[in-house]
This record gives sequence, structure tokens and C-alpha cells, in this order.
Amino acid sequence: MNGHLTIVGLGPGPENWVTPAATDAVGRADIILGYAPYVKRLTPRAGQVFEASDNREELVRAERALALAASGRRVAVVSGGDPGVFAMAAAVYEAVEKNPASANGVEIRVEPGVTAMLAAAARIGAPLGHDFCAISLSDNLKSWATIEKRLRLAAEADFVMALYNPASKARPQQIEQAFEILRTVLPSETIVVFARAVGRADEDVDVTTLIGAAEMACDMRTLVLVGSRATRSVQSGDGRAWVYTPRSERDR
Amino acid sequence: MNGHLTIVGLGPGPENWVTPAATDAVGRADIILGYAPYVKRLTPRAGQVFEASDNREELVRAERALALAASGRRVAVVSGGDPGVFAMAAAVYEAVEKNPASANGVEIRVEPGVTAMLAAAARIGAPLGHDFCAISLSDNLKSWATIEKRLRLAAEADFVMALYNPASKARPQQIEQAFEILRTVLPSETIVVFARAVGRADEDVDVTTLIGAAEMACDMRTLVLVGSRATRSVQSGDGRAWVYTPRSERDR
Repeated sequence: MNGHLTIVGLGPGPENWVTPAATDAVGRADIILGYAPYVKRLTPRAGQVFEASDNREELVRAERALALAASGRRVAVVSGGDPGVFAMAAAVYEAVEKNPASANGVEIRVEPGVTAMLAAAARIGAPLGHDFCAISLSDNLKSWATIEKRLRLAAEADFVMALYNPASKARPQQIEQAFEILRTVLPSETIVVFARAVGRADEDVDVTTLIGAAEMACDMRTLVLVGSRATRSVQSGDGRAWVYTPRSERDR
Repeated sequence: MNGHLTIVGLGPGPENWVTPAATDAVGRADIILGYAPYVKRLTPRAGQVFEASDNREELVRAERALALAASGRRVAVVSGGDPGVFAMAAAVYEAVEKNPASANGVEIRVEPGVTAMLAAAARIGAPLGHDFCAISLSDNLKSWATIEKRLRLAAEADFVMALYNPASKARPQQIEQAFEILRTVLPSETIVVFARAVGRADEDVDVTTLIGAAEMACDMRTLVLVGSRATRSVQSGDGRAWVYTPRSERDR
């Protein structure tokens, strides 16, 4: 092997949610590439080069990472959360498929991380305690018709849903369109959780219902969890409200 | 607050996939409860008590953990992977709902971890790079009819699927029943990955198709990934075969 390319998951934000394997992979890299906010989380050691880029440039970044690794360098591409969930790992394999020779002599490795839905779920209880799905609401890479179909089928299947990329400046209205579809299948009192910037100083987690969700704001730093018919709220002795989905469907 | 109860995710196995926050929560606990194979991963420090139990006793374990925490102890309940995915966090909230007073004065916290599907996906490439779902095939806690319905709808939605608990000694045949259902909806060449004991010394990851899957063995330590119609295999320059799902549906 000439070079190494590791696609590393840095987790949702705080350092104590980064696995030691991810920290090690970052520490050993000669060059680190990634979307600027993720690269900024790291402190370069002597001799290490950082290359930050925009989040619309994932395939270009993947191709550059392969080229650097093929030239014999030890390269890390960093993602927030887990690199395999709506993130850089798929972009790297797309680049390999597009130009297999570009990966000649490159040892590729993926280092998993804590993805946003797991952190959001942990903060509010255990909403992912039963069958669930993860859907990206971004229609940059797929049609809105596909998203609508998946939302409808996921509601019919009674999955808990983790909605990634629920809104951006360019498409602030799509999350409400998603709720409109879900309201046609799910009861209006279905629990919805808005988890913003989990693990950061400005973390904010709010619980509402499919009806109340219309009043909530969200952006690219928000993860939205939509409960199944079994997802419920429970108060612990200190009056704190939690959300969880029972492991069993026995009492439904 | 009198006591503390933290439900901790230890990740899929290796120590370098345990987050520092999880290691810290385990280190600070007076008492650690869990299913025996997870408790056995840990080394007790002086004064620390370990209580290992069977995996059928999750609600009893949750109730005991709450009682110990309510008596003023610092308690950790450990799960493999992430504690919120088919694991102990939901059992704790079930115990709280059943007897809210049992949680009086207890500060509850959930520490997320790397769940099995993320580790399995990382080993084989990026199969979870597009929308996906997670389904437990165990019918201890839900009806087989519910599982069948979800498999069918997930296939119609073209989700990648992570199948947890695909088989056990008591139900070796259910994974094949699941494949039978999926074969009625998905093409026979759909990619299927059997990922066993990922991160352990006896790790074994095999790639086959929905037809070839009939010949494969699996047990409770296996996670099965079923691709979507877009999931594909790609070879890197060293001849290694990877599996990934493109971020985009553009070329379908």
C-alpha cells in the first residue's frame, strides 16, 4: 500500500463523544480534509496540514483525498456524527466507483462515530427504543416525491423517524410539508422532538406534538424525531419529562 | 438529588470504540449493572460493585437500578452498542412509567454509544449512506405480523435495512422468513451483508445477495444489512470489495 485514507466520524460535537479510535486516526494523519466546521474542531499537531472546504463540495473533497492518499500520504477525511450516515464515506466510494484507478494502492478505512440521532435520543430519553428509520429531508440529491413516499410508508410501518437535514436557508418550508404528510397518517398527538445542537453550549431540545410542530423553528443544526404510535412521554420523580418508545408492543 | 442513574453505551466491543464520556460514567459509578457479557468487558476499580444478569431480565434490572439510585448510590447500567437502540434505556423508562415514585430524587442520564449497524457499515464501506431503517427481528416483544408488515413497507420505501437480533437458538428460522418476504418486493440481486462480531477477534463480514442469503448462517452476534435498490458493490484498486449506497438517486 502506498497511502492511507480514513474517513472519520467526530460525533455530534463534544470531545468526550469522540471515540479513541477516531482521535487516533486524526492524530496519525498527515493531511485532514473536511467541511470547515468539523475541521475547526481539531487542533493540528506539528507538521499536520488542514484543508477545510464547503459542504457542497463532497465529491471534489473525496477525489482530492484519494489523490493525496495515492501519492503516499496518510489522509483523514472528517465528518460530524458518523461518516457513514448522510456523510463523507459514501462520497469517497462514489469517487472510487467513478475512477477505480484513483484508489490504486490506497488503504481505505471508515471509523464510525456517534450519529446525531443517537445523541438527540439520549438527551430526551429513549425514543429509538423500538424499530425506527432515518430519512434526510434534503432534496439536493433526491426528489421530493421520493421523500414524500418514504415519509408515508414509514408512518404506515409505525417506525419512529429521525429526520436529518430538516431545513436550510434555501428550503425552510420542507419540514412543514413533511409534517403535513405525516398528519394524514399519524394521530395529531404523535410526539415530535426538536433537538438542536445537541452536546454544544447552545443545545436546545423541545418536545411537542405533530400539531404543535407547526409552530417550531428548525435549521440544519436541528435533528427532528417523530414518534411512533407507541412513543410516549413519562415524568420522572423530579418532574422532568422524558420521551421513550417501549421495547414491547404488548400494551397497544 | 439523592442518586444518579446513567444508562451507558459501551459500543460494539473494542475499547477504542467506547466514548470518553461512557468510560467516565462507568468509572464514577459505585454499582454497575448489566447483561453479563457487557459487564465482563469492564475492570472494576477499588470499591466498585458489579452485578451481572441474564438478558431476559431487563425490566427487573431497570427496577433494581432505580432502587439503588434512589437509595443515594451512583449507578451505571451498561449496554452494548448504544443504550437507546433495542437496549436498556427504554427498559429504564418503562420502569419509571410503571412506578414513577421509584425515580424520586434520581438524576437519570443516557450516554450514547456507537450502535452495531454503524460499526458493521464502517467495516464494509458505506451501506447506510442513504435513507435507512433499523428493525429488530426478535418476536419476544412484538408480533411476527408486525415484523412482516414493517419489512414489506421498508422494502417498498427502498430503505436500506439494518436487521438486529436476526436469529437466536430459539428462533433460527426467522431470518429466512424475513428474506422470503423481502424477495417478494426486492430484486433477487439486492446486496445483503452478514456482519458478525464486528470489532472482535472473531469478526466476520460477508457480502451476498438476497438469493445467496439463504445459504448463510447467523446468530445473535450477527447484524444483517439489506441494501436498497441503489446499494452497490465497488472494488478499490487493491481488489477489495466494498458496499455502499450513493447519497444521490440521480443515476437511477
